[in-house]
Amino acid sequence: MRADALRNREQILRAARDVFVDQGADAPLEEIARRAGVGIATLYRRFPERADLVRGVAEDIFQALAAAVEGAEAEEADALSALRRFAHAALDLRVGAVMPALVGRVGFDGEFERLRRAVGARVDALLARAQEAGLVRADIAFGDVVLLIARLSRPLPGPFDRSADADFAHRHLDLCLDGLAVRPAADRPLTGPRLGVEVLDRIKETIEDRHRAVPETDRPRPGPEHGRGEP
Amino acid sequence: MRADALRNREQILRAARDVFVDQGADAPLEEIARRAGVGIATLYRRFPERADLVRGVAEDIFQALAAAVEGAEAEEADALSALRRFAHAALDLRVGAVMPALVGRVGFDGEFERLRRAVGARVDALLARAQEAGLVRADIAFGDVVLLIARLSRPLPGPFDRSADADFAHRHLDLCLDGLAVRPAADRPLTGPRLGVEVLDRIKETIEDRHRAVPETDRPRPGPEHGRGEP
Repeated sequence: MRADALRNREQILRAARDVFVDQGADAPLEEIARRAGVGIATLYRRFPERADLVRGVAEDIFQALAAAVEGAEAEEADALSALRRFAHAALDLRVGAVMPALVGRVGFDGEFERLRRAVGARVDALLARAQEAGLVRADIAFGDVVLLIARLSRPLPGPFDRSADADFAHRHLDLCLDGLAVRPAADRPLTGPRLGVEVLDRIKETIEDRHRAVPETDRPRPGPEHGRGEP
Repeated sequence: MRADALRNREQILRAARDVFVDQGADAPLEEIARRAGVGIATLYRRFPERADLVRGVAEDIFQALAAAVEGAEAEEADALSALRRFAHAALDLRVGAVMPALVGRVGFDGEFERLRRAVGARVDALLARAQEAGLVRADIAFGDVVLLIARLSRPLPGPFDRSADADFAHRHLDLCLDGLAVRPAADRPLTGPRLGVEVLDRIKETIEDRHRAVPETDRPRPGPEHGRGEP
């Protein structure tokens, strides 16, 4: 594939991921093309069926997760630092937000299922090494790490754009990882903005303003969750 | 109010809270009556308008939060233990899951707004005392506690019933609170079930099974999030 075709494909997959997080796996393909900055014809040429796009997004994320755990192991001095680095990368990949929306559609089989299992086994082994080294408490299991990342991946309700939402998620992931650690790095400064009472009041007011701006009859009916937790 | 009327009111408010979490503030009142185990006429007698029910749920939660912080301060030996106890109570009250669904509808004014601010100020003061005592890291703010509880309050995607979901949430709240602490209680056993790879595989398979059981045309359209994060 030529470099610009590869870049195109990458842009479409990342846009599809974000739209699936916000609107679920049935989101309009036009919206995905728009966010990717490509024409709808280009999207259909690369991904003739919605199922190709869904599978493409899932494969792309798991390939990136495999690269992330490999990179973290190669470059970090100890298993806990590598686990931290992997967890932050997984948060950026939004795996915990998008997979619940896709998991019934993806079809875990063949090469992809082997990849999914290999990534899980490698992170599980990394966690075990961190525990053997006395760095992570012994009663933690792989699923704790996965569910913590999943919870932090889901967009917050409120007026945050993607970037502010991600800042908070990384800050709170740091706190959670300190909770896993036998000896937390309380002297390591937290990332992200300080979250005082005034920030919460601003969240509440922004949601109220938005609510007032939408006439009662135009409000969406309740439906299944895939994305933003706004009323 | 007579004792059985009070019990009725309580049942309706707790059922409404759970239904609002799952389906949003526009959820059918019939579903709320059904889950509360009362007739729809009883519900309308207690809460003539949907707005009364929404306001009632919000007030009930904040009154319970006020009682929880007071109880925690009275009965725990130190400010961090009190903060822990309050956070677990707040998780049980589902404040972080229901308020995002209600916040545009509640109308924070008068007595209720004073209550909301008083609860916030009291928890903020409790956090400050835990920090002054050197028990909680200094770079944490009130909003961190609130957003962590909010993230943990939202139901997980997957096959969990309310009780299993709550077990995981309390387990992970313990971990997060250890992350806030200057010296975590790594020797204190975690609550809740161990979360191995096999649990995650079961989650994935259950979601896939459910997906297969629903014909494509009957699948709900994507909508705003209020509750379960299932595809």
